Amino acid sequence: METTKDAGVVPRGGAKAWEVGLRLLALALTLVASIILGLDKQTKVVPLQLTPSLPPLDVPVHTKWHYLSAFVFFVVANAVACTYAALSLILVICKKPLASSAVIVGDIVIAALLAASGGATGAIGVMGKEGNSHVRWAKVCDVFGKFCDKVAVSLVLSLLGSLTFLLLASFAVIATNRRSR
Amino acid sequence: METTKDAGVVPRGGAKAWEVGLRLLALALTLVASIILGLDKQTKVVPLQLTPSLPPLDVPVHTKWHYLSAFVFFVVANAVACTYAALSLILVICKKPLASSAVIVGDIVIAALLAASGGATGAIGVMGKEGNSHVRWAKVCDVFGKFCDKVAVSLVLSLLGSLTFLLLASFAVIATNRRSR
Repeated sequence: METTKDAGVVPRGGAKAWEVGLRLLALALTLVASIILGLDKQTKVVPLQLTPSLPPLDVPVHTKWHYLSAFVFFVVANAVACTYAALSLILVICKKPLASSAVIVGDIVIAALLAASGGATGAIGVMGKEGNSHVRWAKVCDVFGKFCDKVAVSLVLSLLGSLTFLLLASFAVIATNRRSR
Repeated sequence: METTKDAGVVPRGGAKAWEVGLRLLALALTLVASIILGLDKQTKVVPLQLTPSLPPLDVPVHTKWHYLSAFVFFVVANAVACTYAALSLILVICKKPLASSAVIVGDIVIAALLAASGGATGAIGVMGKEGNSHVRWAKVCDVFGKFCDKVAVSLVLSLLGSLTFLLLASFAVIATNRRSR
């Protein structure tokens, strides 16, 4: 009797459940990451000492996610990744022919896009938290603590999303390589 | 007569030349990127006006690549990518069995690593060039122009390196998928 492999038909049944699960996870992670940072803003009243003889003046200062281009890149990249996760989920469930390579390559590109936006947000986040005396950029997270905490949460979720796409691509590569032997 | 594919032997001859070429290109790009940024420093004499009645005082200011953690991440990531490119080149040339999946997954991980370090360096580079009035971080590239130019060159080379690894992984995925059909 001819086996499934010999007949040229690729067995895919077992892979379906974990692939759908991982794509749903990636969709949720990138969606929540983009929403958390896309709604992130904080207003805080800080005392401003104009002259030593007068009492400090309370001045409201505020920050929003779109004040920094790295955060805009992050929100856009996560929105793109989330949309792609939904589209690839439909392709995988419908088992469209010729979509297999496109979906793996798509996973790789989206993982790299999320890594780039994560790197950008992480670099600005670290600068906001630590500051840098050499370029005289002061830390701002001691004023905007809640804002920075949300940036950190979004960043972790997005990096987990990137890792999920990396896992999807890697598992698919290993499975396809096994079938081609 | 049985064809090569039917006999279960995977034809790989044609892919060899471009794969070796792309790996050598990735090695060169990441090596040059890490060297350019890893040697980047600049000292400049700037006039400092202490009081209006006195002439400005010439003060030397200097910057080095390791003053910013994003640049350290960039140099380390490119050095890792360069080492990986050399190792994967040996594996591909020696045609080690079972190395195929590992090399494709390695390409994907390194592409993402380079994208992350590129994102971090790009975000700090843009901040250095443009500054940001909201967080009161002043632009520094008008003082350290040559330093910033070298950062930009390294960044472009590294992103091309990341693209090369993406292409290597994508071509391998498409070729393997074709063979598995």
